[in-house]
Amino acid sequence: MTLPYGIFSTDGSAPRVGVRLDDQILDLAMVGRLGFFDDLGFDRAVFEKPVLNDFMALGKPVWQAVRQRLLALLTQPEKPLDAFADWVLFPASRATLHLPMRIGDYTDFYASEEHATNVGRMFRPQGDPLLPNWKHLPVAYHGRASSIVVSGTPIKRPAGQFPGPDQQPVFGPSQALDFELELGIVIGKPSRLGEPVSIADAEDHVFGFVLFNDWSARDLQRWEYQPLGPFLGKNFASSVSPWVVPLEALDPFRMEGPPQDPTPLPYLQTTAKRHFDIELEVVLQPAQSAHAFVISRTNSRHLYWNVAQLIAHHTVNGCNLNVGDLLATGTISGSTPDSYGSLLELSWNGTRPLTLPDGSVRTFLEDGDTVTLRGWAGNKQIDWGEVKGRIIA
Amino acid sequence: MTLPYGIFSTDGSAPRVGVRLDDQILDLAMVGRLGFFDDLGFDRAVFEKPVLNDFMALGKPVWQAVRQRLLALLTQPEKPLDAFADWVLFPASRATLHLPMRIGDYTDFYASEEHATNVGRMFRPQGDPLLPNWKHLPVAYHGRASSIVVSGTPIKRPAGQFPGPDQQPVFGPSQALDFELELGIVIGKPSRLGEPVSIADAEDHVFGFVLFNDWSARDLQRWEYQPLGPFLGKNFASSVSPWVVPLEALDPFRMEGPPQDPTPLPYLQTTAKRHFDIELEVVLQPAQSAHAFVISRTNSRHLYWNVAQLIAHHTVNGCNLNVGDLLATGTISGSTPDSYGSLLELSWNGTRPLTLPDGSVRTFLEDGDTVTLRGWAGNKQIDWGEVKGRIIA
Repeated sequence: MTLPYGIFSTDGSAPRVGVRLDDQILDLAMVGRLGFFDDLGFDRAVFEKPVLNDFMALGKPVWQAVRQRLLALLTQPEKPLDAFADWVLFPASRATLHLPMRIGDYTDFYASEEHATNVGRMFRPQGDPLLPNWKHLPVAYHGRASSIVVSGTPIKRPAGQFPGPDQQPVFGPSQALDFELELGIVIGKPSRLGEPVSIADAEDHVFGFVLFNDWSARDLQRWEYQPLGPFLGKNFASSVSPWVVPLEALDPFRMEGPPQDPTPLPYLQTTAKRHFDIELEVVLQPAQSAHAFVISRTNSRHLYWNVAQLIAHHTVNGCNLNVGDLLATGTISGSTPDSYGSLLELSWNGTRPLTLPDGSVRTFLEDGDTVTLRGWAGNKQIDWGEVKGRIIA
Repeated sequence: MTLPYGIFSTDGSAPRVGVRLDDQILDLAMVGRLGFFDDLGFDRAVFEKPVLNDFMALGKPVWQAVRQRLLALLTQPEKPLDAFADWVLFPASRATLHLPMRIGDYTDFYASEEHATNVGRMFRPQGDPLLPNWKHLPVAYHGRASSIVVSGTPIKRPAGQFPGPDQQPVFGPSQALDFELELGIVIGKPSRLGEPVSIADAEDHVFGFVLFNDWSARDLQRWEYQPLGPFLGKNFASSVSPWVVPLEALDPFRMEGPPQDPTPLPYLQTTAKRHFDIELEVVLQPAQSAHAFVISRTNSRHLYWNVAQLIAHHTVNGCNLNVGDLLATGTISGSTPDSYGSLLELSWNGTRPLTLPDGSVRTFLEDGDTVTLRGWAGNKQIDWGEVKGRIIA
């Protein structure tokens, strides 16, 4: 069972912690009030908060104890929650879902070799597609936390500067609005300023994973990003899934990543299975269409750098992590053109327009388009559901 | 009078809001309890918080009313606070000063033409020192909020990757640790996602200014920053002054900035006096020295982009601001070699070592060095005091 955590409310009630069970939400605030966690030795008020941060801050032993308790309650033959179903179970269709955590800092990595190679081929056709540092460290930049929104929030097309026909900047709505298919890592355990997290300990800081769409305005980005990196091309919005899948739930889907050559420096070396076999897909529904079309299918197993390496690198200089920080993988692309995680790659920077089954043609996103990212593992034993956003003018 | 706001505590008491008066701190929590703000119509509990955010969130009319009330209390002939001096005044020497605000997002700009030109000359000697976008928009990147510390916090030399003799990366403590002389803008009024702030309204979002030292590891930065910008080279620590000078206090020091050619796009155009005549200096004290030496003197009037332009640009794509966000100017350099705001520039990337009056030679910072930034306006009618940090191994 996935048992992902999220924040929900119904009919104007206070947002609180819930766990998704297929088409229902289990209200952990009420499960707690009914006494089902009393023997676990933590303050059940953490489930009455409008963010997961307080629960996450209790630490891994509590995360594990709660998950074990929920698994027991839901799978024991006697089903002790059944008698309270009217109070603890809500139809997901009736619930409003909220941003699951208060995000302190948000970092975006660039961990997919295929994505970085594609971008390099498009923008530096003369040189090596990968820059010299790429295979030595997980390249990253800091993103904007304030504009991260929950799935379903409309995405307003950003305006800004981009180069006009004579290479002088013009101002207007972005003409190259894109999505990015990513996974987000939710930090549940802080680290102290000045104290690196070793790669062996890195996963202890991970509460769970979200689906993440790092919306990008490629024209704004291209004009602004030299020499300090992306800014307005990215910080107008990013969308996260309402459900956070606990790391523990993903244990059966661990696997080895691709070989790393050259061997990274010792602080990034690990032999454990730290990649995850997570299926991902991107679905696009044009405004005028009754149907949504899968435009990309890929898998997080393709990432070059694994989660433990991202954390070990992020903190090796002493940078501290806080509970609620979000680390995203960067766009996840596979090796074939139908597995690229952005329209920039799928349309090869607009030079190979996509024709959808309803006849729509896309290079970048149009107003009214809805983009949905989905993720699951195995035969959907583990399922994130989706993160969705519709472009508005 | 400056009347800067900060957070202080004494002898283990709770951190609370204070205002600095020369060598004393006026305790606004107690001034409030004594009833001196009762007629101003806000909840005086904001001064009992360990950060300025709640006070700032009350908005500009309250900021103005409190400043006017303090000016009246401190300058009226009858001096109504004198009878309560034992309870409301504390020697600054006895106080512990804390980080003044809870910082949501931190953005660092690159607003000094002299600094950007110097960096361009050093790292792109063949090309134009300024990239094509620089005079069209205030270049910026997102920085790390979690590692911003208050003045006096020791700065641990970061370790990381940098290129070795054969251009293969090696790992170790940074060999090129630097400071950056900056001003920080503290946001006191939020803006909504999707709603740009016009340049005319931009200063309404500014609560005040801090001194800001954006410590940088140049060797880490140089290796990692392509193509997504600075990351570990910056995010190990930044230091802010404990005192926030309200924007209102700086009105007498407004001035016009340098001419902007080409004329920026309309959303960045302003004719008002939006630059500030703020004197800045950098003082370096080696571990073994009894003396501290001024190694740079400059002025914020040299900045190319003004504060209103930074805010109008930051939000033009709909990016939202929150109370407590910090926007820094980037390194402030003047046009002469004794007015550069970083050792990178002062030692011209290590090629022109600085010799201090005690015979010490510096290219970059050594363990035990203390760097102090100072700022003031006029004949110190307005004074930030300092932001200080000592490098530890």
